[in-house]
Amino acid sequence: MRMRAAVLEEFGQPLVVQELDLAEPAAGEVLLRLVACGVCHTDMYTASGVDPSGYAPTVLGHEGAGVVEAVGEGVGSLAVGDHVVTLFSPQCRECVHCLSPKTNICLAIRDQQGKGYLPDGTTRLSRDGEPIRHFMGTSTFAEYTVMPEIALAKVSPEAPLDRACLFACGLSTGLGAAMFTAKVEAGSTCVVFGAGMVGLGAVAGCRLQGAERIVCVDLSDERLEMARHQGATDTLVGGVGGDGVVQAILDMTGGFGADYTIEATGNVAVMRQAVESARMGWGLATMCGVAGKGETLDIVPRLLITGRRVAGSSFGGVKGRDQVPQLVQRYLDGDIDVDAFLSHRITLDEVNTGFELMEAQDGIRSVIDFG
Amino acid sequence: MRMRAAVLEEFGQPLVVQELDLAEPAAGEVLLRLVACGVCHTDMYTASGVDPSGYAPTVLGHEGAGVVEAVGEGVGSLAVGDHVVTLFSPQCRECVHCLSPKTNICLAIRDQQGKGYLPDGTTRLSRDGEPIRHFMGTSTFAEYTVMPEIALAKVSPEAPLDRACLFACGLSTGLGAAMFTAKVEAGSTCVVFGAGMVGLGAVAGCRLQGAERIVCVDLSDERLEMARHQGATDTLVGGVGGDGVVQAILDMTGGFGADYTIEATGNVAVMRQAVESARMGWGLATMCGVAGKGETLDIVPRLLITGRRVAGSSFGGVKGRDQVPQLVQRYLDGDIDVDAFLSHRITLDEVNTGFELMEAQDGIRSVIDFG
Repeated sequence: MRMRAAVLEEFGQPLVVQELDLAEPAAGEVLLRLVACGVCHTDMYTASGVDPSGYAPTVLGHEGAGVVEAVGEGVGSLAVGDHVVTLFSPQCRECVHCLSPKTNICLAIRDQQGKGYLPDGTTRLSRDGEPIRHFMGTSTFAEYTVMPEIALAKVSPEAPLDRACLFACGLSTGLGAAMFTAKVEAGSTCVVFGAGMVGLGAVAGCRLQGAERIVCVDLSDERLEMARHQGATDTLVGGVGGDGVVQAILDMTGGFGADYTIEATGNVAVMRQAVESARMGWGLATMCGVAGKGETLDIVPRLLITGRRVAGSSFGGVKGRDQVPQLVQRYLDGDIDVDAFLSHRITLDEVNTGFELMEAQDGIRSVIDFG
Repeated sequence: MRMRAAVLEEFGQPLVVQELDLAEPAAGEVLLRLVACGVCHTDMYTASGVDPSGYAPTVLGHEGAGVVEAVGEGVGSLAVGDHVVTLFSPQCRECVHCLSPKTNICLAIRDQQGKGYLPDGTTRLSRDGEPIRHFMGTSTFAEYTVMPEIALAKVSPEAPLDRACLFACGLSTGLGAAMFTAKVEAGSTCVVFGAGMVGLGAVAGCRLQGAERIVCVDLSDERLEMARHQGATDTLVGGVGGDGVVQAILDMTGGFGADYTIEATGNVAVMRQAVESARMGWGLATMCGVAGKGETLDIVPRLLITGRRVAGSSFGGVKGRDQVPQLVQRYLDGDIDVDAFLSHRITLDEVNTGFELMEAQDGIRSVIDFG
């Protein structure tokens, strides 16, 4: 079939919306009609050319939600008409990782996905007979996409897809960092660094876990106001220079530090603050952000010896097919105000505007509405 | 009373054995006659003057075991004649840390102990009427010492005290890192970096937890042989240069890394190896060693995001009064070969020889026998 998609033709250049060919879903694959797709930092990161594993041409986009249009041979868990959220982090339910409760990083299709191919090592995308590689196994800046069944989470048809799509990446990453990676305990004190999509999700996750005190740190008063709306009990305007933020958190916690700190900026200096403001004895610092190439998080070992722990979270530790539907249900139950994150609605043709808004830190999420 | 003790008079100089005055135990304190005391790196570290929190004069020593000679007012858990192991890491059983299962770092007497005083802010040690400060709350390079009741673990009288003393620091630190901090799971793959007292204890701890594979890394073939004796299933001769050790461990584990890595060297380059050889998805890297001042453990954040965790362990996470007696019992039950660690017996007058043997990496532990 023919369909319109936003193609990264050249690093550092605007995406070009154009018609491409999309082949039928093969065995174990699903044809998905996109209804909505968030514009995420990772798309912009790859488009910029900074990501060393990036390639072009490709169809970007990975925060999608839509409706199943057709299923390939052997697809048993999805049927035409199902509402689904795309998973760049799939869940095969069979590999050693999927069978472990300790990780959500499925190994099934990891290698091919990283190279831009579907599990069988080929693409469904092409232009004038030339294959075009997929991106993150999703390529959802497009009217349609073909994805493996194991990379789609079936969600309640009651969930508006322009909200559900945020669970495909940023929101689940934040919620899950608190709920599944850190496993925040009720009554605890938490600090979230960064009040973008991931950080705000983490604030909401801490609240859902019953945290007693949730401190959010960001440079923007406007975003800190959003953090308060999501459940932050305290806010701090703080940057990366000096010890100000760490000292402020120590002062707020009797000199001990917070039970849980969650970093959602990708800045290694902020990651260090997250470690240094975690509580002596048992504080857990969880890193969500993607750092620049070659950058390191430098930790004074004494902080570890005296009881702090450091973890990282990919897609919030969320096992996508099992837990994205549960998170969406919590939204439907009124536990999470997702509307507050949806700041701009754009068309596929305006996808580059989505990048511009993000760069200007205008709003939290632009969502492409496929109409 | 008068008694003989090894005094650190001046940093970088040999300890001077001499007679000192020791006052009666005050309320909550115990007079202890030392029977044996191990010579540990921390004593040598402080004697060298490198430790920024060090002071002189003081009586060093913290790996002691002996017999209760007298108890002060209100001491209820110990009686004259009890066999005890000294605890530089006390357990008051009342502070917020002691009441938590997550940490063994008791807060009760931390500040005074760090300054060289007993909990009431004074010393029992003196010379010609001048107070001499205690060291680590223990000062066990001495025929007698006065210590708080909460810093003594009552152990089985069946345990020879020249072995029991090793549980006062190094051995418990290693055993506990595997058993209580990392909580190594049965069937897992572990890597221990360093085969000194702590590393060998960690190897034994991994074995007691039922690890299937235990790889020990050290520079010395002789020590690796000892590691095999304690339960290592594989050994690697490895230093800090290059990626050789990390790659070897990845090769041994199907490219994934080990479920648990334990660092027992204090070298930040080795700490980094411990992080990098921990398993993707859920590998836990536990740091036991004390790094040099100003040094940092530098971690590539991607390693965290893809599921590795980093922890630190102080005194092996052992809650001393509760768990040291249990560990000593496991020795008596034949689960831990403690004899293998006791490489030299020396007298108090030979304490500087103990430092020389350590510096020459001759044997694992010199133990002062007070006769």
